[in-house]
Amino acid sequence: MVRVGIINVTGYAGAELARLLYAHPEAQLTGVSGRSAAGKPLADVFPHLASYDLTITEELGDVDFVFSALPHAASAEALAPLVRAGVPVVDISADFRLRDPQEYAQWYGQEHPAPELLSRAAYGLTELNREAVQSSRLVANPGCYPEGALLALAPAVKEGIVGPELIIDSKSGVSGAGRSMDLAYHFAEANESVSAYGLDGHRHLPEIVQELAAMWPGKEAQEPPRLRVTFTPHLVPMTRGILSTCYGSMLQGTVRSGEEARELYREFYKGEPFVRVVESPPATKQVSGSNMCLVYPTVDTRTERLVVVSVIDNLVKGAAGQAVQNMNAMLGLPETTGLESPAVYP
Amino acid sequence: MVRVGIINVTGYAGAELARLLYAHPEAQLTGVSGRSAAGKPLADVFPHLASYDLTITEELGDVDFVFSALPHAASAEALAPLVRAGVPVVDISADFRLRDPQEYAQWYGQEHPAPELLSRAAYGLTELNREAVQSSRLVANPGCYPEGALLALAPAVKEGIVGPELIIDSKSGVSGAGRSMDLAYHFAEANESVSAYGLDGHRHLPEIVQELAAMWPGKEAQEPPRLRVTFTPHLVPMTRGILSTCYGSMLQGTVRSGEEARELYREFYKGEPFVRVVESPPATKQVSGSNMCLVYPTVDTRTERLVVVSVIDNLVKGAAGQAVQNMNAMLGLPETTGLESPAVYP
Amino acid sequence: MVRVGIINVTGYAGAELARLLYAHPEAQLTGVSGRSAAGKPLADVFPHLASYDLTITEELGDVDFVFSALPHAASAEALAPLVRAGVPVVDISADFRLRDPQEYAQWYGQEHPAPELLSRAAYGLTELNREAVQSSRLVANPGCYPEGALLALAPAVKEGIVGPELIIDSKSGVSGAGRSMDLAYHFAEANESVSAYGLDGHRHLPEIVQELAAMWPGKEAQEPPRLRVTFTPHLVPMTRGILSTCYGSMLQGTVRSGEEARELYREFYKGEPFVRVVESPPATKQVSGSNMCLVYPTVDTRTERLVVVSVIDNLVKGAAGQAVQNMNAMLGLPETTGLESPAVYP
Amino acid sequence: MVRVGIINVTGYAGAELARLLYAHPEAQLTGVSGRSAAGKPLADVFPHLASYDLTITEELGDVDFVFSALPHAASAEALAPLVRAGVPVVDISADFRLRDPQEYAQWYGQEHPAPELLSRAAYGLTELNREAVQSSRLVANPGCYPEGALLALAPAVKEGIVGPELIIDSKSGVSGAGRSMDLAYHFAEANESVSAYGLDGHRHLPEIVQELAAMWPGKEAQEPPRLRVTFTPHLVPMTRGILSTCYGSMLQGTVRSGEEARELYREFYKGEPFVRVVESPPATKQVSGSNMCLVYPTVDTRTERLVVVSVIDNLVKGAAGQAVQNMNAMLGLPETTGLESPAVYP
Repeated sequence: MVRVGIINVTGYAGAELARLLYAHPEAQLTGVSGRSAAGKPLADVFPHLASYDLTITEELGDVDFVFSALPHAASAEALAPLVRAGVPVVDISADFRLRDPQEYAQWYGQEHPAPELLSRAAYGLTELNREAVQSSRLVANPGCYPEGALLALAPAVKEGIVGPELIIDSKSGVSGAGRSMDLAYHFAEANESVSAYGLDGHRHLPEIVQELAAMWPGKEAQEPPRLRVTFTPHLVPMTRGILSTCYGSMLQGTVRSGEEARELYREFYKGEPFVRVVESPPATKQVSGSNMCLVYPTVDTRTERLVVVSVIDNLVKGAAGQAVQNMNAMLGLPETTGLESPAVYP
Repeated sequence: MVRVGIINVTGYAGAELARLLYAHPEAQLTGVSGRSAAGKPLADVFPHLASYDLTITEELGDVDFVFSALPHAASAEALAPLVRAGVPVVDISADFRLRDPQEYAQWYGQEHPAPELLSRAAYGLTELNREAVQSSRLVANPGCYPEGALLALAPAVKEGIVGPELIIDSKSGVSGAGRSMDLAYHFAEANESVSAYGLDGHRHLPEIVQELAAMWPGKEAQEPPRLRVTFTPHLVPMTRGILSTCYGSMLQGTVRSGEEARELYREFYKGEPFVRVVESPPATKQVSGSNMCLVYPTVDTRTERLVVVSVIDNLVKGAAGQAVQNMNAMLGLPETTGLESPAVYP
Repeated sequence: MVRVGIINVTGYAGAELARLLYAHPEAQLTGVSGRSAAGKPLADVFPHLASYDLTITEELGDVDFVFSALPHAASAEALAPLVRAGVPVVDISADFRLRDPQEYAQWYGQEHPAPELLSRAAYGLTELNREAVQSSRLVANPGCYPEGALLALAPAVKEGIVGPELIIDSKSGVSGAGRSMDLAYHFAEANESVSAYGLDGHRHLPEIVQELAAMWPGKEAQEPPRLRVTFTPHLVPMTRGILSTCYGSMLQGTVRSGEEARELYREFYKGEPFVRVVESPPATKQVSGSNMCLVYPTVDTRTERLVVVSVIDNLVKGAAGQAVQNMNAMLGLPETTGLESPAVYP
Repeated sequence: MVRVGIINVTGYAGAELARLLYAHPEAQLTGVSGRSAAGKPLADVFPHLASYDLTITEELGDVDFVFSALPHAASAEALAPLVRAGVPVVDISADFRLRDPQEYAQWYGQEHPAPELLSRAAYGLTELNREAVQSSRLVANPGCYPEGALLALAPAVKEGIVGPELIIDSKSGVSGAGRSMDLAYHFAEANESVSAYGLDGHRHLPEIVQELAAMWPGKEAQEPPRLRVTFTPHLVPMTRGILSTCYGSMLQGTVRSGEEARELYREFYKGEPFVRVVESPPATKQVSGSNMCLVYPTVDTRTERLVVVSVIDNLVKGAAGQAVQNMNAMLGLPETTGLESPAVYP
């Protein structure tokens, strides 16, 4: 039994990790930390986790595997000594996602706390980066938006059927904003309302661009195509879920119909337990509480555009579930271990 | 491995049974029936159940254990031959809940289809009727409202601390109305709205009264107290959950404070894995997706009234989870088998 | 044209007053104050009020009529000099609702800032206290819960058909909690959840008891009946609306059926433009955005209990609309002036 | 006082028309028709309209102005004799929006019932087509999606700052689907879920393309640019509101920043009472219940794309409010007559 610890269990990602690990047959949650709630039973902060007999501590004790659900910068600071000591970790924060520390500084407004560790980190979108994840001891869990967007676009990009002009229009539930207070997340303000945000540049954009560029065919050429990605996140009045609608122009002579696109996608994701290519547009509710990503590619034949819709639960496949999947891969377990529960529907 | 079948899997209770059974280590769902969807893969009707490789059939094949999620009357008709053949069954419909066929006829508007089987049925609120459930092969799963209300009131009634004047004010999510269409459940009508219904008498009232009367102290006396129960269900704009607020006058010299009431309740439910007495008023979200019932008794010392609030997920503890718990009890398994997942929060 | 000012326009009640006054043909909003937002255009704080060309100031300037939407205590302090100067005011806070300053101190945890003004205040539930409101220059606008509960119970109490044992079970939308932040009102926590609160005594309870006692038949008798009111508020996942379900035992030989109860209620509220007795249980959505209160009394003939359901929009009839109705009454205008818009449905 | 009639008042658009007309000082609703509900008081079908003393009839009686809220095809059939008789009408259905009867046949699956009237119809997006509306007696009210999308794109298209490659990603509340039942609109299915639909071509697409083409600069040239518009509607869990996010590539040397774009838009919509260019991304709640459209254009300088976000209430500016605005224009009244109420917020 692997002894697992969660740093900063008091946010939604941390609590969701604890929920998922409860059912994990090979891992046992033995430590949970969180500054503000240190000393309290976990059940006092999260009544739904009352089955755990755990007290939140200021610092994690001795564990075999660590998840960090700290905010960025604080996460790298807390993880650096663990990484150096060889403890395997999955970082749910953004700290090890961008490979370029200057880009990190630009988007996160501060110097990276441990740039020397960046080269050790694997980007933890297991389906697209399996070998690196399996052999790494420091995995950067993807952002919730990149998770859904990259799974939607990867087959089209890797198979060379779309050009570099891409638009990603994402719709997220409010839990994506975390458990912190802001008037925008007050029920009376967020309910019965949809809004766009981050139009001047959301921090998940460079992550998406970095990963798309890395998978671009011919990216080693002297002049790789300049990716032009517009990403617009929206807040919708629901708790969980992200739906991403992705648009790209088809390259000539590739795919001619939605059915062809789905065939290509099915082939691409063959054998993947957590990605399913579906035959009709999916709804976020179909994956709520589960680690599934449903992908629906189609072709707007009037305009020769590829349109791909993906849905995930932002707290599971977009955070804690993906993190457990990464842990499984790192530990040599079947990736589905502890993650097989169907979605909670309706 | 027990081979399990669900009759009428196409409603919410049926689908929720399938969801819960997916994680059950001792039971395997091998057959699902449903007239209107016969011939379709289960995954076509419920995409969240795509992990099952099952096709919906018109009639169940050979199984070891049967759940019926049919509407009332149809359920008794379908189950009668199975019961006679000795197949253990849990009926989620109302057909075997009321012991008096005349009361059934009065509230359900038709003769009972199999009155001779009523005496074989155990009322499946396991916590309050464990031995009968364990030894029965025909268990009537409680209605969703009675489930929450009876767990809230049983300790007070059995310990003799409240009189026979009781008011139960319940607030239910919309999934309680089932998957059938009615303008009242149209999102645009149900959202941002609360309403009361069933004020002329809801079918769950006789079930509540029957069970409360059966547990009343001194019920064998010549003149048992005449129970006077008012039950008002309300529809609230959420998908899952029932919160019941129960009011009763305290009998003199019994409990004097909320703390005393909670102490008595804790003692009553000691060792029960699915009922937890909590120290502050619970929220339905704390049990969403799980088989837990949280109970918060307190005393309005100004009026000497006991007020008890309980919360359940109407589709789990109020239907499918309670049914699996009953199956476990009937099969001699630990009652928690397959039901240990924490609630999905937030 | 009456020049109207709103003190503390930055909360929901203040903003709703501004919304309603926009359509008022006899009053013009000419001043709005609010400490934290002083100096900002009203449209910056509330984009839906962009039609107003008003800047929020620290202090109100010269106006003919004042609404205060300040928190309690601060409100009395701000209004005292205005009241002494003879400016007519409606106070939306709780400061002038309770006639007994000791009760105020007990429930609000501080001495009343201006106890000498309490005798000048009229309780502003216009339908039940019209003459006092019309002749007063200081009107205490009712709390949102008392508004709906008192309109539901007044006919039964005044006509002597119920006894003194009363239970009020209320379900409120989240805007009732105001525009301040608290984790309980975070969308991800409040959505898909119902909870009870205030079980140890909500501040609206003494207000309800005071007003019910004042209307009790034979209240001048030496030993008036001791009212025993239990009031339980609940938070439901919607923005606006309160539904109150009220229970009382019928006195013998009074009303025998729901139809008789409704006839009595119709007679009681005859000619009232903002209270309608309805023939089936109402939904809060039917009054959303409007100043209407729908009341549905019925009789649970099994238990001889009167059950009355009322619905209001907590921000209109439960706050700003009732306040404008009071202003109209104080100014000698038809009470419906500016308040005739139908509800926004769906 | 203009006597106004509504054909098919029983859907959401019809009811919303009745709500808005209640406050109209120059028009009086004197007739409402609706086959299925004929004979019932309007208040029985819509309790929020109880202030009207109107009975629903099978056929409209004598009125001066007619709104039709019938489904397509039925609407043209009902309106044709009225149009021929010279009665001024606004058609909320799609029947007179597409100028080409063959396109109508292709998208609506049947021959146009009155193609000879198409040339008489004005497309009723008043802000963009004011003179035609003012001088017409047959106005085709825009579809809800085209309304928001065209107001978002018109300045950019007319001023020649974007190319012909356009993507419109729209998010609509559930009331847009009308008051008919479908499992997709069941609260339990629609709540806590977002989905895309109409990916194979939504009926509002040809309407959008037709109107964009008509405003294209140089459209009279021999080879006008071939517009390539992808339109993806989404269903989000709220009752009212549409947010459209529109993407287009900037033409070189035009606008270089969001601020420049907003300046151009402000100039374009100068003096329009119902379109406001805002300085930060708007939320649908800011216009709920009102006839306002808020537009926020910005530039993604990384990709040289124009991104425009617009919000409307689909039942007001997207249907009934736009219809009343058209009536006002047709009757020579100020367009704001009866439409000045601020949004209902929160």
